Amino acid sequence: MPMGEFDLIKRYFDRPELRAGPVMSLGIGDDCATLDIPQGCQLAVSSDTLLAGTHFFADMKAHQIAHRCLAASVSDLAAMGATPAWFNLCLTLPHADPEWLADFSQGLATQAQACGISLAGGDTTKGPLSISIHVMGWAPTGAALTRSGANIGDAILVSGSLGDSAAGLQLMQTNRQAQGYLAQRYWQPTPRLALGQWLRHKASACVDVSDGLVQDLGHILKASACGADLQLEQLPLSAALVEQVAKAQAQDYAASGGEDFELCFTLPQAHLASALTYAQDSAVPITMIGTIGGELGCRIWHSDGAEYKPQSGYQHF
Amino acid sequence: MPMGEFDLIKRYFDRPELRAGPVMSLGIGDDCATLDIPQGCQLAVSSDTLLAGTHFFADMKAHQIAHRCLAASVSDLAAMGATPAWFNLCLTLPHADPEWLADFSQGLATQAQACGISLAGGDTTKGPLSISIHVMGWAPTGAALTRSGANIGDAILVSGSLGDSAAGLQLMQTNRQAQGYLAQRYWQPTPRLALGQWLRHKASACVDVSDGLVQDLGHILKASACGADLQLEQLPLSAALVEQVAKAQAQDYAASGGEDFELCFTLPQAHLASALTYAQDSAVPITMIGTIGGELGCRIWHSDGAEYKPQSGYQHF
Repeated sequence: MPMGEFDLIKRYFDRPELRAGPVMSLGIGDDCATLDIPQGCQLAVSSDTLLAGTHFFADMKAHQIAHRCLAASVSDLAAMGATPAWFNLCLTLPHADPEWLADFSQGLATQAQACGISLAGGDTTKGPLSISIHVMGWAPTGAALTRSGANIGDAILVSGSLGDSAAGLQLMQTNRQAQGYLAQRYWQPTPRLALGQWLRHKASACVDVSDGLVQDLGHILKASACGADLQLEQLPLSAALVEQVAKAQAQDYAASGGEDFELCFTLPQAHLASALTYAQDSAVPITMIGTIGGELGCRIWHSDGAEYKPQSGYQHF
Repeated sequence: MPMGEFDLIKRYFDRPELRAGPVMSLGIGDDCATLDIPQGCQLAVSSDTLLAGTHFFADMKAHQIAHRCLAASVSDLAAMGATPAWFNLCLTLPHADPEWLADFSQGLATQAQACGISLAGGDTTKGPLSISIHVMGWAPTGAALTRSGANIGDAILVSGSLGDSAAGLQLMQTNRQAQGYLAQRYWQPTPRLALGQWLRHKASACVDVSDGLVQDLGHILKASACGADLQLEQLPLSAALVEQVAKAQAQDYAASGGEDFELCFTLPQAHLASALTYAQDSAVPITMIGTIGGELGCRIWHSDGAEYKPQSGYQHF
């Protein structure tokens, strides 16, 4: 007898391991979930669709797919400085394979627990493998980090290292079983939640690096009507990346490769010292990569003063 | 030059016609939208995925697809007695066809205005046509209608008429241009929002009829640990349905056909008279179709006392 939608939900998704976030007055199993936002806070919501073959490999392990999709979605909450709370999962599957579903559910639970987020509901449908996730969180009213507040003279910083995920993707393209740091950075990104929340009332603008640094920083520049000058040598590169590819390739990945899910943010100079101290204390590296200026556009400079021309970032259509 | 994701969003989705709901402190264009829930209210959320070929015809007019998908999603808010506020739209498209998108956007705006709901964000991706909608609304804390409160002796009622959408689907299967009441009930369902809100603190349980009356009422019976006796002759049939198909077929559609998006709810006898008065005043027909009993399961009776055996409802897998 084929497994019905309701059995499937009950078995793989209505699990205590998927309720690591705030208590829900009503979770999975009704027409809607009902959820309580703390007083004085605003709801922050974001939705992402990830398609097999476009955003992940259909033949990756199911727990890797779950991890990657949930982390990518939660990263939008990190970029707003929001506290994660709940998510809805819309899962489209070619067929209900118990082994695949058990592995997917396990990966989802691991990542949900890491983020402190609960599954509140969703939908399962039969079709080509794709995943739509709606994440919900909150931030004190007025404290959410937007893209539009960067000012001339602000420092531009990024967390962690850039370009790892693009290199990991290359590795996994030829070998789905690829192990090691770079592959892991591709399928197991870490949303920078604690950093995002620490930046409330400090950062003037923030985005997560999903489509590539130049493109995502470009959103800040456009929304804030300003420009940026970046130092190519300052882009943070991991030891693993530098070991794997030539330096010029590593820098291309760092400037234009997407899906590192690091935060790129602008900081008034007054907050720079405390941010660098926070980075040391929290073990989340933060690197200053440039400065906001009045001349529109994003320029990246080699150390010899020549201008570097980045590749274009990810195009959705 | 191909249209990028950001141009597409700007042109077709960042429109004032799509902001008929409550003001958003931050809408489309950042990593998250930030939204304010009125004090004393709970957030109600639901997500649905609709796939071309499964939940709608890929060659239906784009505005029909938009209307149908948004109405189906908002219907879950109606079933909770929630007030609609915002929705996120994840749209997966084979290609960005301006004519299709303009028609889709127009249909979405018309339905969003009818429901008083604003587009807060979402995602656009390239792939097989599918639509995931995440609806958000609110209800006073504790007032949301759930599936679990039905009690022995409660009346079972439905709004509107049943089976029309199943008959409309049959018509459109052979003729996508089908006009008339039944086809319209298929692609242009009406979420029963005002009724849902009126039922707060009155109905003991409520669902919307999406997978078929027997299956959806079954959710109430299971959650409330009770049973139901329905009168087949009482199932409300539209004049158009009775004219189109034989009576037995019309009753089968009414019992098991899905996607009418009417409300099925249980009401303590003390509220029955005021509900029927409300129905008259609001021009939303309400029909009593049976009674909640202690014996588990759902039984439907012919007028001669013989038991009617319904077909099974929609199976997602």
